[in-house]
Amino acid sequence: MFGQMMTMPLLISSLIKHAEMYHGETPIVSVETTGGLTHTRWAEVSRRSRKLASALDYLGIASSECCGTIAWNNHRHLEIYFGVSGSGRVCHTINPRLFPAQLVYIINHAQDKVLFLDKTFLPVIAQLRDRLLTVQHYVLMSAKDEEAVSLLPGLLFYEDLIEQGSEDFAWPELDEQEASSLCYTSGTTGDPKGVLYSHRSTLLHSFAIALPDSMGLSARETILPVVPMFHVNAWGVPYAAAMVGASLVMPGPGLDGNSLLTLIDGQQVTLALGVPTIWQGLLRAMEQSASRVPSLRRTIIGGAACPPSMISTFRDLYQVETIHAWGMTELSPVGTVNHLLKKHEQLPEDEQHKLRVSQGRPLFGIALRLTGDDGEVLLPDSAMQGNLQCRGHWVVDTYFKSGDSALEDGWFSTGDVSTLDEDGYMTIRDRSKDIIKSGGEWISTVELENIAVAHPEVLSAAAIAAKHEKWDERPLLIVVKREGSTLSPEALLHFYEDKVAKWQIPDDVVFVEELPLNATGKLLKNRLREAYGDYLIKKDKPQKWGSQ
Amino acid sequence: MFGQMMTMPLLISSLIKHAEMYHGETPIVSVETTGGLTHTRWAEVSRRSRKLASALDYLGIASSECCGTIAWNNHRHLEIYFGVSGSGRVCHTINPRLFPAQLVYIINHAQDKVLFLDKTFLPVIAQLRDRLLTVQHYVLMSAKDEEAVSLLPGLLFYEDLIEQGSEDFAWPELDEQEASSLCYTSGTTGDPKGVLYSHRSTLLHSFAIALPDSMGLSARETILPVVPMFHVNAWGVPYAAAMVGASLVMPGPGLDGNSLLTLIDGQQVTLALGVPTIWQGLLRAMEQSASRVPSLRRTIIGGAACPPSMISTFRDLYQVETIHAWGMTELSPVGTVNHLLKKHEQLPEDEQHKLRVSQGRPLFGIALRLTGDDGEVLLPDSAMQGNLQCRGHWVVDTYFKSGDSALEDGWFSTGDVSTLDEDGYMTIRDRSKDIIKSGGEWISTVELENIAVAHPEVLSAAAIAAKHEKWDERPLLIVVKREGSTLSPEALLHFYEDKVAKWQIPDDVVFVEELPLNATGKLLKNRLREAYGDYLIKKDKPQKWGSQ
Ligand SMILES: Nc1ncnc2c1ncn2[C@@H]1O[C@H](COP(=O)(O)OP(=O)(O)OP(=O)(O)O)[C@@H](O)[C@H]1O
Ligand SMILES: Nc1ncnc2c1ncn2[C@@H]1O[C@H](COP(=O)(O)OP(=O)(O)OP(=O)(O)O)[C@@H](O)[C@H]1O
Ligand SMILES: [Mg+2]
Ligand SMILES: [Mg+2]
Repeated sequence: MFGQMMTMPLLISSLIKHAEMYHGETPIVSVETTGGLTHTRWAEVSRRSRKLASALDYLGIASSECCGTIAWNNHRHLEIYFGVSGSGRVCHTINPRLFPAQLVYIINHAQDKVLFLDKTFLPVIAQLRDRLLTVQHYVLMSAKDEEAVSLLPGLLFYEDLIEQGSEDFAWPELDEQEASSLCYTSGTTGDPKGVLYSHRSTLLHSFAIALPDSMGLSARETILPVVPMFHVNAWGVPYAAAMVGASLVMPGPGLDGNSLLTLIDGQQVTLALGVPTIWQGLLRAMEQSASRVPSLRRTIIGGAACPPSMISTFRDLYQVETIHAWGMTELSPVGTVNHLLKKHEQLPEDEQHKLRVSQGRPLFGIALRLTGDDGEVLLPDSAMQGNLQCRGHWVVDTYFKSGDSALEDGWFSTGDVSTLDEDGYMTIRDRSKDIIKSGGEWISTVELENIAVAHPEVLSAAAIAAKHEKWDERPLLIVVKREGSTLSPEALLHFYEDKVAKWQIPDDVVFVEELPLNATGKLLKNRLREAYGDYLIKKDKPQKWGSQ
Repeated sequence: MFGQMMTMPLLISSLIKHAEMYHGETPIVSVETTGGLTHTRWAEVSRRSRKLASALDYLGIASSECCGTIAWNNHRHLEIYFGVSGSGRVCHTINPRLFPAQLVYIINHAQDKVLFLDKTFLPVIAQLRDRLLTVQHYVLMSAKDEEAVSLLPGLLFYEDLIEQGSEDFAWPELDEQEASSLCYTSGTTGDPKGVLYSHRSTLLHSFAIALPDSMGLSARETILPVVPMFHVNAWGVPYAAAMVGASLVMPGPGLDGNSLLTLIDGQQVTLALGVPTIWQGLLRAMEQSASRVPSLRRTIIGGAACPPSMISTFRDLYQVETIHAWGMTELSPVGTVNHLLKKHEQLPEDEQHKLRVSQGRPLFGIALRLTGDDGEVLLPDSAMQGNLQCRGHWVVDTYFKSGDSALEDGWFSTGDVSTLDEDGYMTIRDRSKDIIKSGGEWISTVELENIAVAHPEVLSAAAIAAKHEKWDERPLLIVVKREGSTLSPEALLHFYEDKVAKWQIPDDVVFVEELPLNATGKLLKNRLREAYGDYLIKKDKPQKWGSQ
């Protein structure tokens, strides 16, 4: 017997309708690609997203066809999110920092019919144009711009489309299982793989991330999503913000510390979200400025391990709470968020701090488990590390256009190695491809890096597995020093002595000018392994620090 | 093209699985019907709900069959919620305070196969037994109790069922549209009507009520649901608490002010929910006690209009935030919740207070609109009052076993008359059956009552439409005075003078010992109209105060 309640599909269009209806005046502030601020509001974003949808009809873009975006976080990108998905097309956000060959591959793979682009990315797209086989319309996300046309003949302009579109466009009543958006993984461990989200998965993810023990989103927040909209939908914030009627501050191309600081203070941002490397820049800018970011109450940090020292800096110097979260493109992306439990409230601050360092507990809707190397399921109450697997309403089932299920036995293998405690706190130890196996024992590169960046003279650091004759692999540290530092390898390795077991201390340190980051600011350790994997063998150095 | 994410049904069993897995140790404290506290936790509630489900198999209860409950808020009732619905049966919560004839009617209408009952309700059920046509098993929610058997031969005992059931019971993978639970309306305006919830509607409602701008539920709350589990699932709190892993304090039969106060202080309750009449009792108990309820941070009040004076008393004397909410059985029940918007943060306290008095803004998932008396849709930006209609994921479509849709034009008519401002704040003016039409003008009985109860000598008050020769209807006030008060009708009517337009002031006041309340503590105005509807005509009183 079925229930006798109304059933209506969970659709992305219902988010923007709600935001227009009940939060129409709430401000959306957007940094333009060419500089300057645009002030708009949810009602206007909604109206323009309907006009855009109608213009796509006019351009002949059928439902289920992919519309690509190569763009910063700005109000037009937000309109595209709702206009494209709401009208039954697929919003394919493209990471502009991918290698050109990868860009060509994924645009052709998705068969994008339209490409919306910010002016920043015009030159690279103009160069690739001949290799993009399916794109019928290139749309510059701005008003008419003659200079741009000379770079890419036939270019259309976003504001012209909006002008032409009708605001009377009515959102179609889609099946909630329809594809809504497409995002490829970051390509940290290999070639990017496509994940095709549905309206349903997006809405359930929005509910879950807005909960108090998740991002805790309400109509009283002013949110700065520094995490790019081209990377897993800015962690789902645009959708969830519409759901709860929060104010958004879109940073455009200005992701350096000073620009962010100006924006936070100028727009009275209360919550900011991004990857650790971004906050390194912000913290440096804050150090040099007089601002104590009084409006900012919380930062949500994920995408890569948040160094514990960053959590304490935000808390001790700026009274900002840092919430550590873990996710993946394959999870829409949020899987776990770190909040304390009631029983932790009475703990002393340093005990609380220890708990806050982990990647957190699963949202309702996500189940986690660990498996051992032979695929056996590890007991949930074990503190042993294992391969992290998950299931849930917003977890990938099959990669886009792949015939094979991405699941084993109904579970998705994340490629991360982690621990899972009895309360569900999950701690990432490493990626399975990065973890170091030294003489049969595992060493977490994340842990070694966290120690290095806590050293006052270290700006950033990567630990990698370097080949070793006796132990198979040994940790090698690659480090960028702070300006003016005279730190020696020996001194830095000394710093590890009371922090990890002796056999886990890296064998050596290489100082470099910068570390290779991928499009979302993550360390490309495969490139470091290519460059430095043979470092210990070649140098044939005597083993000073590592002994087991 | 469909998305390629995992799809799994939204099921009530997934709530209790999540609570067991990630919040297993979180305490559930329960007042026993026969006195005393039981301390349990989510893992144990989950384990016992599986055992119960297995025992229902053993009793031969098929899926989709209704299992009735006539019980207080306690841990066994919580186990029944999950055990019955999780296993594919329908949990039919019955309001014990209905008239015996109504009880017989709804139990037969639902065709309940099992009746779970607390000892309090044994005598009434024993008396009705012969008229209950479908009930096969009566289960007393306790351990074996010989005295009870003598009242109801053949009685089974809950703890015996749990003993027999297997904890290895595996929750079935149901269709999310399956019926999960059944609740009849309160019978304030007529006979109760059944609303049949689905797993899907329940889960979506749980997400929505847990959001920060709704009840704001997290694993750091200790929640006291005073609103009964026999009344619209205690506003959905049991489900949402499992979703977020909150601690629950179940008050059992002790709903008087002193019992609640003891429980709040003893269990360090942070959030309590109930109807205004309940909080009247609590506030009186607090007045007479030394306790300032230091743990209590928020109360959520709904089910009937929350008098503005109650909001200020909670705030000024106890630093407790009162959140006003509106709902109906037909809405699972939550429709709107009152939270301020960002732009209100800077308003002076009295301005904020005015906003907090309204019934609030719709949750995401609910749309509201007003219609005029000819069915025309009123503009959303109008402050005009109209018939309130709604749509949404957890709104009734058809009453249980009714052939006719409950909708008009796709919308559900609430029977409430309200206003709706541009931000979506909805203010209930009255029920359409209660509102007074005096000489063609509407007078809100809710408004008149709010003024009366703000008078220091008034304990409770009802305003009703009394027939009038000249004006068709005129307001009449029925009042219960505080102990020892010598208040006169004239003095009380005087109190209205600067508060409403002169023609809205009631024509007369009748002092009574008590007001007729229905099962959930709501005023039964139809009974008052029966008793006092002719009061003004019969008395043929000269019109002293009301003049238009
Ligand atoms: N808080 C965190 N702490 C540690 N690692 C994290 C955290 N959040 C995310 N990660 C890492 O990021 C991964 C997900 O990143 P994303 O989906 O952007 O692509 P990627 O895994 O970097 O790229 P690809 O899958 O193409 O190699 C996770 O599997 C995990 O390794
Ligand atoms: N915050 C509130 N302020 C004013 N009225 C409220 C509030 N919350 C609920 N109500 C009233 O309660 C009604 C819903 O109550 P419920 O579903 O328990 O049954 P009922 O309407 O009292 O009974 P019946 O429908 O059988 O007559 C609403 O329609 C509204 O009139
Ligand atoms: Mg990956
Ligand atoms: Mg009703």
